Amino acid sequence: MRGIVANRNPIPENQQDILPMEAVMPLLDTAFTWIERNRETYLDRLFDYLRLPSISAHGEGIVETAEHIAGVIRGIGLETEILPTAGWPVVLARRSDRPSRPTVLLYGHYDVQPPDPLDDWISPPFEPTVRNGRIYARGVGDNKGQHFANLLAIEALLASLGELPCNVLVLLEGEEEIGSPRLAPFVEEHRDRLDADLVITSDGPVNESGRSCLVFGVRGVALFELRARGARTDLHSGNWGGVAPNPLWRLVHCLGTMKNAQGEITIAGFYDDVKSPTPLERDALDRLPYDDARIMAALGVRCLDAPDDRPIADRLAVWPTLTINGLHGGYAGEGSKTVLPCEAVAKCDIRLVHDQSRDDILAKVADHVRRHAPDIEFIPLGGMDPSKTPLDSPFAEPIRRGITEAQGEDPLIVPALGGSLPDYVFTKILGIPAFGVPYANPDEANHAPNENLEVERFFDGIRTGASILAHLGSMKKPNTA
Amino acid sequence: MRGIVANRNPIPENQQDILPMEAVMPLLDTAFTWIERNRETYLDRLFDYLRLPSISAHGEGIVETAEHIAGVIRGIGLETEILPTAGWPVVLARRSDRPSRPTVLLYGHYDVQPPDPLDDWISPPFEPTVRNGRIYARGVGDNKGQHFANLLAIEALLASLGELPCNVLVLLEGEEEIGSPRLAPFVEEHRDRLDADLVITSDGPVNESGRSCLVFGVRGVALFELRARGARTDLHSGNWGGVAPNPLWRLVHCLGTMKNAQGEITIAGFYDDVKSPTPLERDALDRLPYDDARIMAALGVRCLDAPDDRPIADRLAVWPTLTINGLHGGYAGEGSKTVLPCEAVAKCDIRLVHDQSRDDILAKVADHVRRHAPDIEFIPLGGMDPSKTPLDSPFAEPIRRGITEAQGEDPLIVPALGGSLPDYVFTKILGIPAFGVPYANPDEANHAPNENLEVERFFDGIRTGASILAHLGSMKKPNTA
Repeated sequence: MRGIVANRNPIPENQQDILPMEAVMPLLDTAFTWIERNRETYLDRLFDYLRLPSISAHGEGIVETAEHIAGVIRGIGLETEILPTAGWPVVLARRSDRPSRPTVLLYGHYDVQPPDPLDDWISPPFEPTVRNGRIYARGVGDNKGQHFANLLAIEALLASLGELPCNVLVLLEGEEEIGSPRLAPFVEEHRDRLDADLVITSDGPVNESGRSCLVFGVRGVALFELRARGARTDLHSGNWGGVAPNPLWRLVHCLGTMKNAQGEITIAGFYDDVKSPTPLERDALDRLPYDDARIMAALGVRCLDAPDDRPIADRLAVWPTLTINGLHGGYAGEGSKTVLPCEAVAKCDIRLVHDQSRDDILAKVADHVRRHAPDIEFIPLGGMDPSKTPLDSPFAEPIRRGITEAQGEDPLIVPALGGSLPDYVFTKILGIPAFGVPYANPDEANHAPNENLEVERFFDGIRTGASILAHLGSMKKPNTA
Repeated sequence: MRGIVANRNPIPENQQDILPMEAVMPLLDTAFTWIERNRETYLDRLFDYLRLPSISAHGEGIVETAEHIAGVIRGIGLETEILPTAGWPVVLARRSDRPSRPTVLLYGHYDVQPPDPLDDWISPPFEPTVRNGRIYARGVGDNKGQHFANLLAIEALLASLGELPCNVLVLLEGEEEIGSPRLAPFVEEHRDRLDADLVITSDGPVNESGRSCLVFGVRGVALFELRARGARTDLHSGNWGGVAPNPLWRLVHCLGTMKNAQGEITIAGFYDDVKSPTPLERDALDRLPYDDARIMAALGVRCLDAPDDRPIADRLAVWPTLTINGLHGGYAGEGSKTVLPCEAVAKCDIRLVHDQSRDDILAKVADHVRRHAPDIEFIPLGGMDPSKTPLDSPFAEPIRRGITEAQGEDPLIVPALGGSLPDYVFTKILGIPAFGVPYANPDEANHAPNENLEVERFFDGIRTGASILAHLGSMKKPNTA
């Protein structure tokens, strides 16, 4: 790295446990100053990254994007490889400056959701544009802008301190938006190289109130498609209505057996593995400052999803959902067309909590469809298990302090994020704790048109990343003398 | 008409009632010979008509098509006008050669359904193509090919007899495929000019067995749309699933309250005006040669629409339906997209029977939606009332004999067609009987890709039209001395 200033205040190697905040502060001041001086080029470099489409659903721009970000990471000073998988490649990088300190794996994904419906974007999805203090681009929040902030945090620490306060692994995958189908086998295969003590992921939004969060879990997701077929061809609804079965009615009735109007999922055994939150989780959930009225106003809805009696914190963290992502069949044009369609398709996702497993739930859905609508084809589309890290993990406190120092305010403790990340590969396969430190604004509109990230949250993210690494570096590697 | 040969065998004016078949035969032999000699030019002229798109749903080609067919009718020798309406124009033509004979109004429509999905057409919808003895083109069966056959029947009679055996009115509208919204006001306004004794419509298919039909009624149709809205924008199903209401689930549950999986429509009062068929109708229905196994094989379905215990004849003629014509919301692309959509729309039609009325049924649906899903917008889209002519009408016998003579086989007596035609404007507003004499093959694929008409059925239609006019001309105008 040209231009990096050697550090005169390395982190003391002999520090046994968490440094008091007063000791970490001077180290960070230098890094923060560096970050402040580089605002403009940081934005430019983020924009270069955002301009590359990398749509895992159909592969557009994926390989070029992996090469681009691998080049960026190598330039920062990490040993960087692009490793193939059966799908899109993984970018894996490491820097191990301090053997006696913990190794943190920074996970992210360089792929993005498809940008449609394109007409709803105010500026084009792959031409990053700043309006009213926000960067608009597909992937800016989910997830390029967030892991890019963490990469710049590493760069800023190296530039200002000369070495990193702890060891880092960076793992960026290219299939998160299609359910990370190859991440588990990748982690199994490369288990030896993934010798991290903990994982941090910056993805998803901060709390709806705008407060920063420290997240201990994610919901899992199980994806499937239901495909109903009627006659060989579309038919005239007058000539054949009442004679030929209608695949749209079949889907409507099948879906109606899976979730009732009261919001209860009526698939046998669906709630079997949904456990009550632990006392620590219950307490944390109750402290989350969700404001129903403000959320409803922001969404533009007059009521919350059924049932009425569940707090928003619980709806997102400890309760599963069954969402129809899309349902399509028959005439879609203007006016009327009295057609009896020959095919209809529903795409659905289930958000899983606690001890639910993707495979178990998909098997239960398959069984339900077989019993209630044997003429409908059930197509499982993968997904990922949920993940949980205990709220009393020893890494929780340094991360919390890292966030507090960078942002001037204690983060909220969030037992689980509503969205899904493949954290289970770390907590369940590698057996290490996984934490979420999201940087995005709650109205980031990820997966939707006009996805955006507040410019200041991007810079907050860089500072926060640096601060967390500094605080983790102030503790000893676990299980070492 | 150049080339028309003056007739040497005019129909005797003093014939009191139905002529014996032996007396009509020689008149028709001349006409049938004429038709046979003109096969090639008839097909060419039909193709010229089919090449004109005339999509009432969005107006493409409508005005040009009305002008084209008016020119054809004028050329045949009828006094022809294009009359404006608040929507697309009506072509009205007349020829009154024989004051003491009945006046038959030949109704048809020059508009067609939209041709989408375009990719499913083997040859383009507006380039008529003959394959395996069938003409493929949008509108060839529904309805251009059928009323064009009746126009050529008039031409053939004039060419071979020099005058028409009875008086004719031709009424071609341009809005049948969007529910004939201006036909009733048109008929009210022009009641004086529509001094017909009966109406004949050639539309829809013959019986599924291939047998020709004489049809006494049609189902009505009530069209509506249901529009559900959720949040202002599409949302991430993880961040908001379980919090924001899902318009697709709202539609699924609302539709589920309107018809159950057993096929019963569960809208309050829906069946109030569904009456049992009369004994004559019951007898006719029981004689219809529907073959369940053959129909299921032809459609490519393994079962009929629920419930199981209703004969196909009843399903189409005397029982109402509620069909979802299209349902669309959320992601429609390949793979998965974990979106929580902001809007979903269902388009539906109800086929009405007997004494059901469009307005009454639409009011009942509106009321149902208001009570069960007040957040869903109900948008009525018009439709038309059902129609019935008594099976013992005095015109039934000459029409039946006309069909038999042209086709060599007695037609099936069909109490009502499954599809909808605006016959109610004739039976309920003008108070005259309306008959259907369809010419299209049962697999005409109207309203669907690859709409087609068997070439021989087109020529059968011309002969049948001529024969019916000859037989009607052999009876005295009703209520004259």
